[in-house]
Amino acid sequence: MAIRYSDPVNAIKHSDTGDILKLIAQPDMISFAGGLPAEELFPAEEIAKATEIVLKNTPGKALQYGPSLGYDPLRESIAKRMNRMVKTNYTKDNVLVTCGSQQGLDLLCRLFCNKGDTVLVEKPSYLGAITAFNLSQVNYVEIPGDGKGMIIEELEKALKENEVRLIYVVTDFQNPTGITWTRERREQFMEVVDRYEVPVIEDNPYGELRYEGEFLPSLTTFDKKGLVCSLGTFSKTFAPGMRLGWIAANTTFIEKCDLLKQNMDLSTSPFSQHVCEAWLDNFDFDAHVTSVRDLYRSRRDAMLNAMDEFFPKEVTYTRPEGGLFIWCTLPEYMVSRDILKQCIEKKVAFVPGDPFFTSEGNTNFLRLNYSCNDEETIRTGIQRIAEVLKANLK
Amino acid sequence: MAIRYSDPVNAIKHSDTGDILKLIAQPDMISFAGGLPAEELFPAEEIAKATEIVLKNTPGKALQYGPSLGYDPLRESIAKRMNRMVKTNYTKDNVLVTCGSQQGLDLLCRLFCNKGDTVLVEKPSYLGAITAFNLSQVNYVEIPGDGKGMIIEELEKALKENEVRLIYVVTDFQNPTGITWTRERREQFMEVVDRYEVPVIEDNPYGELRYEGEFLPSLTTFDKKGLVCSLGTFSKTFAPGMRLGWIAANTTFIEKCDLLKQNMDLSTSPFSQHVCEAWLDNFDFDAHVTSVRDLYRSRRDAMLNAMDEFFPKEVTYTRPEGGLFIWCTLPEYMVSRDILKQCIEKKVAFVPGDPFFTSEGNTNFLRLNYSCNDEETIRTGIQRIAEVLKANLK
Repeated sequence: MAIRYSDPVNAIKHSDTGDILKLIAQPDMISFAGGLPAEELFPAEEIAKATEIVLKNTPGKALQYGPSLGYDPLRESIAKRMNRMVKTNYTKDNVLVTCGSQQGLDLLCRLFCNKGDTVLVEKPSYLGAITAFNLSQVNYVEIPGDGKGMIIEELEKALKENEVRLIYVVTDFQNPTGITWTRERREQFMEVVDRYEVPVIEDNPYGELRYEGEFLPSLTTFDKKGLVCSLGTFSKTFAPGMRLGWIAANTTFIEKCDLLKQNMDLSTSPFSQHVCEAWLDNFDFDAHVTSVRDLYRSRRDAMLNAMDEFFPKEVTYTRPEGGLFIWCTLPEYMVSRDILKQCIEKKVAFVPGDPFFTSEGNTNFLRLNYSCNDEETIRTGIQRIAEVLKANLK
Repeated sequence: MAIRYSDPVNAIKHSDTGDILKLIAQPDMISFAGGLPAEELFPAEEIAKATEIVLKNTPGKALQYGPSLGYDPLRESIAKRMNRMVKTNYTKDNVLVTCGSQQGLDLLCRLFCNKGDTVLVEKPSYLGAITAFNLSQVNYVEIPGDGKGMIIEELEKALKENEVRLIYVVTDFQNPTGITWTRERREQFMEVVDRYEVPVIEDNPYGELRYEGEFLPSLTTFDKKGLVCSLGTFSKTFAPGMRLGWIAANTTFIEKCDLLKQNMDLSTSPFSQHVCEAWLDNFDFDAHVTSVRDLYRSRRDAMLNAMDEFFPKEVTYTRPEGGLFIWCTLPEYMVSRDILKQCIEKKVAFVPGDPFFTSEGNTNFLRLNYSCNDEETIRTGIQRIAEVLKANLK
């Protein structure tokens, strides 16, 4: 008998991402490909102090096994922050702490979906969510947007025609498009979803990173039946290396999540959780997030300004009010993977758009990240891409 | 449409563990129920120093996203330690760092098993492994042991009669029985398994906690076809709150594990990993493990001595050379859950044995933990259990 892997593992497509990443890893490459937070923003000294406090005051609790729902004071802090920022009405009992949002995606798909079930996603949608959901062997229906969120008629049609088990959306500064749903669209969306009673994952990794305009309420504020599971993370506002995220949802869902979490990894690191909570408790989270916003805003502006100046008018792109990404639409005859090859020769890189779709085609899109390069580098990199784009115009 | 959860979630049995734990949580209860390491052993001050070193020298790397395989220097340290302790022949490329061993159990079952596949387990086996595997909706065949490891004839029979996709064993100081497989049995086991080419999880959370006798080689040393996946953890030798474990296996398996890990949670906390590696690098792991062994050895002795003195001769039990647990066999007419109820009234608790079996029945076993109570408390608790046992003799 030969070794046989499970079906979902066999179905993981060989991606060329590894090969691309190797090419990009050259030292003089300007990369807009990743989505990494800027390392200079990590509050390393404050974290050292927070750790000292934790290991002095509660070493036994921070270093011992902990509850699978998470560390209560951190759950409480998360609920309070969400209530303030996106107008939810949560208590700690609505929160389960995960090893980053990625685990939340895997966990929630395992909670709601069997093999072959249908999941609704935005067109395009977050690549990492699609690959996580693939482990549960689900099928997808893509719902297009119009720049203000999902098109409601398309949503309703899909819900009518399919037995949908889960909907996945990113309503603030979506990855990859950078688009934010309007308040009205959120309300309309929940009106329809409440009618069909389908659980919704509202993934919100970038919500705090708003550089202008008003904070918009979470889908939960329009959710009359407790269908929305909010995913959040400290990766963009604190430090991704802590691997701290959360699921916030109605307590029945959270109790089920708890059962899964227990069997998946017992709990998220109590050490990381205690350090994070001590940091929130002893330092100024608001001030820190403000400095993150300030840096990323200027980088976004630098990138958009350079694109306005150098990109040919045949290429269009989003103007995100926050988050980390700009989404470009090339003329249909251009293939973003070909453009990427030419760009890599000029020592600049991005992510081609096609992996963000569950359907075939979609070859003329690309995603640009502006969070981890300085303004001058951004300008140089955009200029290089612009040259390639111009050379490929028909 | 009503909310429907996935089949594995619906299949999670309501356990009475929660109710038992609530009863046990009374302040004057002596609990031998858990399996917690002794908190007084956690090297809190050293961890604070290790964190300081990390956040001074490599804050960017420790707080940023990290590779899903884990932090290379830590992977290297794990491989070297295994090679020294259990005679493996691993390099860092054989190691993937997990969020504790529990995640390794979930990940490996997802790697090898589809719904309905057959997994061989020891009779009895580790409860946490069974509940993790249940998420993949597998079936079980239990293989009895004889105090020296799995009975080889039973193993061979099961492999002949079933299309087995995975075998799960704990060869050192098993949870729940405390039994260690002999060297000869390990060799015989691998001879059979190599013939059938079935992947094996050798879970070894307690291997370092040997209080007497010789360290025995890992199953991998007898594995000619690269079938063994070793699970290890820092939870018992360092601190469970870091949530650091690992899978060690042939590089083909590790590459597949990497694909799963990426989609499950991107990576184990780089912060925890860097702190652990800095601690290994700057402090004396061997000396620390020696102090852990010394404390647990005296507690094991205290428990066994008290059992020898107070328990009725009708009750038999294992004499583990290491680990955290003693396994008791009651006369068949006694039901361990009834005994537990009576014990809780006398303010002493243990875990009944039946959840460690995948078959029904098995009502006359119980597991005792000795790691987190001092010797005097252990003696008092055992005396109380002995009184209940005697009162229940026929």
